[in-house]
Amino acid sequence: MAEFLFERLCLIGVGLIGSSVARAARAKGGIARTIVAHTRRPETLARVRELGFADLVEADAGRAVEGADCVILCVPVGAYAGVMRRIAPHLAPGCILSDAGSTKGSVIRDLKPLLPAGVQLVPAHPMAGTEHSGPDAGFAELFENRYVIITPVPGGDPAAAERIAELWRRLGSMVERMDAETHDKVVAIVSHLPHLIAFTICGTADDLAEETREAVLRFAASGFRDFTRIASSDVDMWRDIFLNNRDALLEMLARFTEDSHALARAVRYGQADFIEDRIRRGRRIRRGLIERKQA
Amino acid sequence: MAEFLFERLCLIGVGLIGSSVARAARAKGGIARTIVAHTRRPETLARVRELGFADLVEADAGRAVEGADCVILCVPVGAYAGVMRRIAPHLAPGCILSDAGSTKGSVIRDLKPLLPAGVQLVPAHPMAGTEHSGPDAGFAELFENRYVIITPVPGGDPAAAERIAELWRRLGSMVERMDAETHDKVVAIVSHLPHLIAFTICGTADDLAEETREAVLRFAASGFRDFTRIASSDVDMWRDIFLNNRDALLEMLARFTEDSHALARAVRYGQADFIEDRIRRGRRIRRGLIERKQA
Ligand SMILES: NC(=O)c1ccc[n+]([C@@H]2O[C@H](COP(=O)([O-])OP(=O)(O)OC[C@H]3O[C@@H](n4cnc5c(N)ncnc54)[C@H](OP(=O)(O)O)[C@@H]3O)[C@@H](O)[C@H]2O)c1
Ligand SMILES: NC(=O)c1ccc[n+]([C@@H]2O[C@H](COP(=O)([O-])OP(=O)(O)OC[C@H]3O[C@@H](n4cnc5c(N)ncnc54)[C@H](OP(=O)(O)O)[C@@H]3O)[C@@H](O)[C@H]2O)c1
Repeated sequence: MAEFLFERLCLIGVGLIGSSVARAARAKGGIARTIVAHTRRPETLARVRELGFADLVEADAGRAVEGADCVILCVPVGAYAGVMRRIAPHLAPGCILSDAGSTKGSVIRDLKPLLPAGVQLVPAHPMAGTEHSGPDAGFAELFENRYVIITPVPGGDPAAAERIAELWRRLGSMVERMDAETHDKVVAIVSHLPHLIAFTICGTADDLAEETREAVLRFAASGFRDFTRIASSDVDMWRDIFLNNRDALLEMLARFTEDSHALARAVRYGQADFIEDRIRRGRRIRRGLIERKQA
Repeated sequence: MAEFLFERLCLIGVGLIGSSVARAARAKGGIARTIVAHTRRPETLARVRELGFADLVEADAGRAVEGADCVILCVPVGAYAGVMRRIAPHLAPGCILSDAGSTKGSVIRDLKPLLPAGVQLVPAHPMAGTEHSGPDAGFAELFENRYVIITPVPGGDPAAAERIAELWRRLGSMVERMDAETHDKVVAIVSHLPHLIAFTICGTADDLAEETREAVLRFAASGFRDFTRIASSDVDMWRDIFLNNRDALLEMLARFTEDSHALARAVRYGQADFIEDRIRRGRRIRRGLIERKQA
């Protein structure tokens, strides 16, 4: 086994996710001889230099990827096509291009057409995060014991997918593989719909009459408070996720809406059995999570 | 000031809330000379005797309230009418009847018609709880720094309401007063609708094809996981809450549904500005909570 998994690891975007990859790679060792970081804005670049989790900080995306044997995109998924146009001409043959984006169908759609010959695409999604963003929010333990889903592209080199899997295992994660379509459906219900709901209910509360809204903030208690934590996530990231997992998200929202109407109807007509059945299903799902130690 | 706020405090129902009141009253002191506990099932009675947080444990609800100068109902709100029929003939003149129920309009509707002369009704709702239930789930610190909403009934004795307010302050809570209708609207959006949504999304996930459902449990990540915690709450309590805050709950669900459709439409047609605005509102509400130290 080589001393390092990669000679030169380039992170395009070093907010919460990218900076956590850099920090974890340093902390674990054996992952990359050199870590190159690129970020878009001069002020973030300056902050990344101060934080010092990368060996090289590069203002130009094209120059950043030059000579890298692994490039990981850690920018909002809506920025992929633009970023890819800038870096594609500079990607070295033999390089593996991967990412951490929360949608996978759109990522393949946006990256594959511009992929230079000799470069392997291995889309990946670490199922770990917080509601904070930017390079200060990252930490080395973020991926510890969390799942990373890899969605290999048809016709891709299995050895490249295996190296990305090994990268994440060395960062502390468990790796699962599935196709991009299944991934997008699963995250639609596990993460994207809960976020859409959380943003929505905050808006609904915000529209209440002044007096009620004041009381809502005061008595946020449990329930609403958990929703607002989810709803405090980054604007650009979530706009891009919604727009880039549109079909699966709208499908899951439609199912959820039908189900909420059925429960509302039972409440309206006093159908206790139906209501109890719904509550019991919630408890059963929770038990399933506890058994799987995901609670 | 008297040595004790009440001579004989009777708790009808000693699950999470009732047993926490008993424990906190003991821990704080100066609240009740004698604490009487009643619960419905023989096995819970036996467990309450073992736990020892009450001075007297009484199997008969009527006998339990005899001679009490304060009675607090801590049973699911759907049980109020039945419990009241059993205890009303035994309530001593001068006694204050209060409760901890999560709905307030229904509580007044169910208790007031049976209220004996000389007994004061002071409905109250501690905005504190967990997703656990039963006498083992209670703890003395549950109400510490949490709000309690008192909804005095028109024509009631202000001195009685003030004694219940003082009880909760001594248990560590902040007391607010509002009318029952406003209370029911506020808790509909702060607590009841989030629970309805959480139960629903768990059901939606449960209906997915086997393969996707397995993946949902495995990747519950943040978002869905928080919803399942909310959804693990007690069946009887939540059935009763939904059925007894029907109008406010259905009204808030209707508003939420309209808002979620508006956001879905923006996703469908790629209206980034609209989506960003909704996400920003979520973040603003969250900031409001943080400023109020309710986050
Ligand atoms: N946060 C999570 O919970 C989470 C979890 C799993 C996966 N992900 C995915 O990981 C990726 C990064 O998320 P994050 O939470 O790390 O975001 P973040 O903390 O907001 O960082 C975003 C990074 O991307 C750069 N960037 C933003 N917009 C850009 C644009 N239009 N063009 C070029 N660069 C841009 C930012 O640069 P400047 O700051 O210099 O502008 C920053 O370096 C996203 O695709 C997200 O879906 C996030
Ligand atoms: N849990 C919360 O987060 C929370 C927060 C604020 C307010 N509340 C309100 O506080 C009240 C009590 O909730 P809790 O969480 O303490 O519930 P809990 O832990 O489930 O305890 C319920 C108590 O009520 C008794 N009970 C249940 N059904 C009954 C019936 N049909 N007739 C007579 N007694 C019955 C139970 O007796 P057995 O066990 O002997 O059957 C037990 O003593 C409810 O009105 C609830 O809405 C709850």
